[in-house]
Amino acid sequence: MLENGRSSEGGVVSANVQDSLDQRERSETTARLLITCADQAGIVAAVSNFFYHHGANITALDQHSTDPEGGKFFMRLEFQTPRLDMPLDLLTSSFSSTVAQRYDMHWSLKAARDRRRIALLVSKHDHALMELLWRAAKGDLEGDVIMVVSNHAQLRERVAAFGVPFEHIEVKADRKDEAEAQLTALLSEKQIDLVVLARYMQILTRDFVNAYPNQIINIHHSFLPAFVGADPYRQAHEKGVKLIGATAHYVTEQLDMGPIIDQDIVRVSHRDDVATLRAKGRDIERTVLARAVQSHLQDKIIVDGNKTVVF
Amino acid sequence: MLENGRSSEGGVVSANVQDSLDQRERSETTARLLITCADQAGIVAAVSNFFYHHGANITALDQHSTDPEGGKFFMRLEFQTPRLDMPLDLLTSSFSSTVAQRYDMHWSLKAARDRRRIALLVSKHDHALMELLWRAAKGDLEGDVIMVVSNHAQLRERVAAFGVPFEHIEVKADRKDEAEAQLTALLSEKQIDLVVLARYMQILTRDFVNAYPNQIINIHHSFLPAFVGADPYRQAHEKGVKLIGATAHYVTEQLDMGPIIDQDIVRVSHRDDVATLRAKGRDIERTVLARAVQSHLQDKIIVDGNKTVVF
Amino acid sequence: MLENGRSSEGGVVSANVQDSLDQRERSETTARLLITCADQAGIVAAVSNFFYHHGANITALDQHSTDPEGGKFFMRLEFQTPRLDMPLDLLTSSFSSTVAQRYDMHWSLKAARDRRRIALLVSKHDHALMELLWRAAKGDLEGDVIMVVSNHAQLRERVAAFGVPFEHIEVKADRKDEAEAQLTALLSEKQIDLVVLARYMQILTRDFVNAYPNQIINIHHSFLPAFVGADPYRQAHEKGVKLIGATAHYVTEQLDMGPIIDQDIVRVSHRDDVATLRAKGRDIERTVLARAVQSHLQDKIIVDGNKTVVF
Amino acid sequence: MLENGRSSEGGVVSANVQDSLDQRERSETTARLLITCADQAGIVAAVSNFFYHHGANITALDQHSTDPEGGKFFMRLEFQTPRLDMPLDLLTSSFSSTVAQRYDMHWSLKAARDRRRIALLVSKHDHALMELLWRAAKGDLEGDVIMVVSNHAQLRERVAAFGVPFEHIEVKADRKDEAEAQLTALLSEKQIDLVVLARYMQILTRDFVNAYPNQIINIHHSFLPAFVGADPYRQAHEKGVKLIGATAHYVTEQLDMGPIIDQDIVRVSHRDDVATLRAKGRDIERTVLARAVQSHLQDKIIVDGNKTVVF
Repeated sequence: MLENGRSSEGGVVSANVQDSLDQRERSETTARLLITCADQAGIVAAVSNFFYHHGANITALDQHSTDPEGGKFFMRLEFQTPRLDMPLDLLTSSFSSTVAQRYDMHWSLKAARDRRRIALLVSKHDHALMELLWRAAKGDLEGDVIMVVSNHAQLRERVAAFGVPFEHIEVKADRKDEAEAQLTALLSEKQIDLVVLARYMQILTRDFVNAYPNQIINIHHSFLPAFVGADPYRQAHEKGVKLIGATAHYVTEQLDMGPIIDQDIVRVSHRDDVATLRAKGRDIERTVLARAVQSHLQDKIIVDGNKTVVF
Repeated sequence: MLENGRSSEGGVVSANVQDSLDQRERSETTARLLITCADQAGIVAAVSNFFYHHGANITALDQHSTDPEGGKFFMRLEFQTPRLDMPLDLLTSSFSSTVAQRYDMHWSLKAARDRRRIALLVSKHDHALMELLWRAAKGDLEGDVIMVVSNHAQLRERVAAFGVPFEHIEVKADRKDEAEAQLTALLSEKQIDLVVLARYMQILTRDFVNAYPNQIINIHHSFLPAFVGADPYRQAHEKGVKLIGATAHYVTEQLDMGPIIDQDIVRVSHRDDVATLRAKGRDIERTVLARAVQSHLQDKIIVDGNKTVVF
Repeated sequence: MLENGRSSEGGVVSANVQDSLDQRERSETTARLLITCADQAGIVAAVSNFFYHHGANITALDQHSTDPEGGKFFMRLEFQTPRLDMPLDLLTSSFSSTVAQRYDMHWSLKAARDRRRIALLVSKHDHALMELLWRAAKGDLEGDVIMVVSNHAQLRERVAAFGVPFEHIEVKADRKDEAEAQLTALLSEKQIDLVVLARYMQILTRDFVNAYPNQIINIHHSFLPAFVGADPYRQAHEKGVKLIGATAHYVTEQLDMGPIIDQDIVRVSHRDDVATLRAKGRDIERTVLARAVQSHLQDKIIVDGNKTVVF
Repeated sequence: MLENGRSSEGGVVSANVQDSLDQRERSETTARLLITCADQAGIVAAVSNFFYHHGANITALDQHSTDPEGGKFFMRLEFQTPRLDMPLDLLTSSFSSTVAQRYDMHWSLKAARDRRRIALLVSKHDHALMELLWRAAKGDLEGDVIMVVSNHAQLRERVAAFGVPFEHIEVKADRKDEAEAQLTALLSEKQIDLVVLARYMQILTRDFVNAYPNQIINIHHSFLPAFVGADPYRQAHEKGVKLIGATAHYVTEQLDMGPIIDQDIVRVSHRDDVATLRAKGRDIERTVLARAVQSHLQDKIIVDGNKTVVF
């Protein structure tokens, strides 16, 4: 509550509208560079010179080296584009030929206004899905939810309330290939960049996973590597742990073993049965998945083998 | 993801349905007693004897004494009713005349199936409101959201998606009395037991507050007592704190000074501007308010002067 | 810093001295009962009646039932003894014959002034050891550290500074039996009630473990059940987890698998190498072990199979 | 415990010794630059070019701009010196004349091997003092504790056990000036760079504070700005907060109002009296102060008006 409702509220609300405008406006002119390469002398200078000379205003720079001698070099650079001396696609080509090749970089350069196109996959548990739809609706996600795909029909109306298309692809035990083919076609047609498994309880095939390298994010309902596999809250209850966790990770061929993006925990006690563990777990699953997806959308993650650098 | 989609998922889902059925079924037979009185010898024995002899099965008992000599005594007792030797209302009368009067207790005894009737009051920020509506829809709240009241019309559709009535009571600066009279009439008509201010940005009058003693819960967007009043995230940013918080409290006549029910914090840094503080704050506001409301609905809170005992 | 050094400081210091006096004085008259049995109607009434009629003032009561029908019943009761109508040992006998036998209870009843006698076992890492010695020296532990035993000599002086005896029992790879026999004799001679493995890096035999059931507490430097066994910080680094943990548990025959008492975690990132993981881990190891030991000393823990109830 | 005591322990211990050697060795060749200036195009390029051309290997770079247009620019750069083409003091002069002046920077450039000389000031509470002495003894602090100064004599022996000189400067209420003059002379004689108030309960004068700008770190036993001044745990208890905190900050003329470096909290409940609040608070005071001191010693903090940037 505020001292003086009307005027104070007006102030807050216009501040918030201003927040959104500021963010949206800055997004229009923001671009981000991610680099991985062998550590060598002069990389930071070469990169910052390149951007300076082309009129980019560097607003954030994070660097990480695994070792001062012979290690790996990781960098994230965020810059503003209004005073660039050439269009961003030409700048990208120029960076490739003049800097990236010299240092044999793995890299990506993306404009924030080219928003990622997201598909949310879900089975029956709606909490992670609702959290992402709600954040997207508020404008808190730097990406667009293009559609929700489920192997069940029951969440159709909930999704409809957000104005997002809902696709039901039934998965029959003996015809999984058909279902996955249907899913693949749909993702391709809609030009999806990021697949989020928001409690999607179907195993994806190797081919599917390999078609979206580091572009599929799953939320596992345990503190990995503890409690891999089915019903982790029951496993946690049987073990008598005093904390339960959730883990967001990129999906690889091996079940629940891909590079970890984010994790969090909540304290539990002997008073919690499996049902209350599940309820407490839902809250951290929501938070951890939302943070991981946002980090991906803001190009803050570099995958390094089976691990991640999250700037 | 699970080892074997179809069968594992089936297992999880039926487990969850079972969770809900178990909870709902147990609610039908659960009752809760809250007691405050001067500490004296024999209270626990007197209370537990009473319930034992009338066939109640005590399933949880929490007790707190402020001092072994001359302190205050607080107790919460949860019991199951199936084998009671009389109806719950008769048991309540009997408890009053045989135990409560002897020890001069303040007390309440409520059946969990008599679910509290909740009104959610909101202005323009929808995050706390959506969180509560969503939890109520999932069956996670032990109370019924009867209506949403707002001094603005803009959230009408969002609320409608949950099938909850939405009432718009405009508050004009020079006619606040009228608005409050309208609100009071509405709450009374709908027999509301609990008013939740889910970011409601209007000051309530002394009369209103006194009509709902310890029945109005507010979420303040700071770690009280730091940053009382308007725009606490801006205050926090100007002070340069490294943690921001949220506080759920009962509303009293004095602004933001009522008994604290729950608090939590999140770590922030120099990288956070006021807009990102607000975004991070929204997440803890949601969590803290939901926890506080649930504690109230489960009769876990006793107000003791300007403080709370939360069992 | 305080407004007025001299007088304010005086106030604080005398307050703290008062804290200690109050605690020590209350310890003289505090006793604690722990009960495990099959859940049945009337247990709380029977127990509270017994203590009431013998003049005990119940100051804390915690109860937990695993299920309202056919579950297990756990209870902790703390009471003050000044007005008991008989000495505590007679009360204990009486409780055994009149209440405990009727409900077939596992139970213990201990006076807080009968302080547990503690042996700290350590190898070379001193952080967990120092934390416990320091807390004991401050009077923060409700038990007495009788001695420190190590398989290395190097911490002798550090321990001497606290005025605690230090015993060096060398463990040669081919003569482990001798070393353990020596340790067993020493613990027995000193009438040790609680053995704390404060980073003791030797495997204890089945016989040793069985001689101290639920009386040996270990601190494992990971969030169990993740990273059982050797060098868990290296395991955590290789897995790329975003949180590392520590787990205090009772020692059973199976390595790192005994009932968990307490756990905690700290956030880490790609910037942490194994060395900084170890450094961050040391802080949570200290805290978690100290909390677990204190819970044990205050009779707050009931072991239930491979799990604990920690009131 | 480990699978095979002897060999596993050997592995861990030599790993830890290696940790320390690696850290110490790297410290010998590490230098750090801190910069504050008005944000302008080309700063990152200018700085990284300068260091690249002089043979510095940049191993960490953090940058923060308050606003892309007209904001402030903050940067921390860590580099390795083995291949520098000139001694570090010449490099420093060269940086001053060629880069720093051009951009009108506030800056500092320090070699990690020039360890800061620390004085710990304490009154009677020893927990924060012991924590820092213990970390220093382990080699975990990147600075040298030169002496402990206290207005009481009672901690002399505790400090002696660490081999650190102890100075007792009595502060009489009517002769505070003398005491402070004595303190000032001592700090000056010992060439102290950093004064840590580890629960030092005397008010320092404006002159003293101004003689050590951003070089005095205090631990306040509350979550500032809540509970400024005396006996904050009592204030917290009276307010009934559900979390208590600790705040490390630079000392300025205004009591408890200097720039905040770090904060943390711990959850409390109605069961905590002032004594247990103090005990729980001690643990977070220790942690928060140690973290803040280490950040200062590693040149991770830039003070910006009444706030800090902590990289």
